[in-house]
Amino acid sequence: MALTVLYAGSEAERDDWRSALAQGADARGMELTLVFDPETVAAETVDVLLFAPDGPVPDLRRFPRLAAIQSLWAGVETIVTRPDLPPGVPIARMVDPGMTEAMVEYVLGAVMRVHLGHDRLLDQRRDRVWRPIAPPLARDRTVGVMGLGVLGAACAQALARLGFDVAGWSRRPRILDGVESHAGIAALPGFLARSEILVILTPLTEQTRGLMDAEMLAKLPAGAHVINVARGPILDDAALLDALARPDGLGGATLDVFDVEPLPDDHRFWDEPRIMITPHIASVSRPETAAPVVLDQLDRLQRGEPLRHLVDPDSGY
Amino acid sequence: MALTVLYAGSEAERDDWRSALAQGADARGMELTLVFDPETVAAETVDVLLFAPDGPVPDLRRFPRLAAIQSLWAGVETIVTRPDLPPGVPIARMVDPGMTEAMVEYVLGAVMRVHLGHDRLLDQRRDRVWRPIAPPLARDRTVGVMGLGVLGAACAQALARLGFDVAGWSRRPRILDGVESHAGIAALPGFLARSEILVILTPLTEQTRGLMDAEMLAKLPAGAHVINVARGPILDDAALLDALARPDGLGGATLDVFDVEPLPDDHRFWDEPRIMITPHIASVSRPETAAPVVLDQLDRLQRGEPLRHLVDPDSGY
Repeated sequence: MALTVLYAGSEAERDDWRSALAQGADARGMELTLVFDPETVAAETVDVLLFAPDGPVPDLRRFPRLAAIQSLWAGVETIVTRPDLPPGVPIARMVDPGMTEAMVEYVLGAVMRVHLGHDRLLDQRRDRVWRPIAPPLARDRTVGVMGLGVLGAACAQALARLGFDVAGWSRRPRILDGVESHAGIAALPGFLARSEILVILTPLTEQTRGLMDAEMLAKLPAGAHVINVARGPILDDAALLDALARPDGLGGATLDVFDVEPLPDDHRFWDEPRIMITPHIASVSRPETAAPVVLDQLDRLQRGEPLRHLVDPDSGY
Repeated sequence: MALTVLYAGSEAERDDWRSALAQGADARGMELTLVFDPETVAAETVDVLLFAPDGPVPDLRRFPRLAAIQSLWAGVETIVTRPDLPPGVPIARMVDPGMTEAMVEYVLGAVMRVHLGHDRLLDQRRDRVWRPIAPPLARDRTVGVMGLGVLGAACAQALARLGFDVAGWSRRPRILDGVESHAGIAALPGFLARSEILVILTPLTEQTRGLMDAEMLAKLPAGAHVINVARGPILDDAALLDALARPDGLGGATLDVFDVEPLPDDHRFWDEPRIMITPHIASVSRPETAAPVVLDQLDRLQRGEPLRHLVDPDSGY
């Protein structure tokens, strides 16, 4: 059975996806019809929709044969909240090994920058100052990882392997080697009080929207650093700026995600030098590593097996 | 048998060493006489010398009973080249677990900074530019580690665990999990040609002094980055500046060690913005983690066992 797959991702990545999927399908001897224009496609032929929030927005009710929606992004908050979701059509998150690797690398880089005091070292170098202050060891530094899904667990374990004292928080208890487990909303304040460096990696859901507000930011130790690589709306912008302004408040923040992206030119974050801003680069799907994941899913579909990494409609991720 | 131990390290760290050694000896029930002034000490009572190049310089021929010299630094080039070395007295390098951890952390931080393009991201952030370019994955980046002793091996393996393609070079062949082995001087050019990021971690010996000269730097791929955390004289200063100036030359350097430290105010390195300068902080012994190592050695001496990490007089490390 040949599958018809509609790509509804970004135009910029369309050619990379086309060649990665076509080559992979050829290599597997898989029959695949790839279509790219939701307006002109024969809607009744589409079996699978590849979805990304930066692509065109087809009306999902137009595809009577739709058997699955495969997200091309790790976060699925843009698709699960759509009113035109066809009932009963399974939605799968993207778990791209390349994306997991990239996320771990971004997070380790950001944590090491804060841990080793790179910003202070860069200032000293610019001012031609020689001031040898050895940084503390990772074993004496607590990093909190908020959200222990595929990405959060990978980051927490990589940080633990590097020697950091790692605390993890998740909605439901998760046991991970070398990671102190905190679970449930009641455990969040205690977890935050331990986190000298906090890495936010929860999915964006109704429960996590605005979760890191003034009250929760105040639980962090004085001088703590917040790294947000999940979604902008989890962290309250005004509360973050206030926490940075308090004398016993935060030491800094590293943000890769924002309520509105690109971050608007007049956003107050640009005026706060203690906020490192990166342009949503931590969690990008890479067609060369994500296409094999998509093809595995199509293969399962053809064999009548359930897709992997299905979204739970109740939790929203 | 109580041992008399003369501390000849820096004055700044004297009190930390004193309390760490005294407490550790107490806890072990070890009898230890710690002395601190090489001028006034009864020279004939000294059994062990604790040596660091930033301490006082006692005449080593004054101590007739000297049974061992324990370096407080990882590098021993300052002591093994002394003309007053008493023949037959064993010299031990410092292998401090805290120093190894600190070195791994420094090197990972520096490699991630280069790998992820933190400098470019900081420039973009300062200029308020949003330009999402995802960095390559560690698996597509080759890091070369030159020198595979305790520190080099720990760095190479930590980088390999992070996913980097790691090549290692050492004088004698070393087999390390996940590290491509290159050995001997004839293999150096091929190893360098592979190294997009080069970490120098060889001891300073007659063989390695000036080893990274213009010819060897030219073997590195265009745009490569050199990290020196070993000793300044291994890398030729003028050749490094020339290699940075060539259009197809180096992309940058991160230096923690220099021929003269502190790096003189008028040194040309300060004028080259592509050289990150840090004030010899990567490989500092920490009394709290190094004192137990010293006490283990004293224990071995008392029991008549050979010291660990002995310097080989032929190789100089």
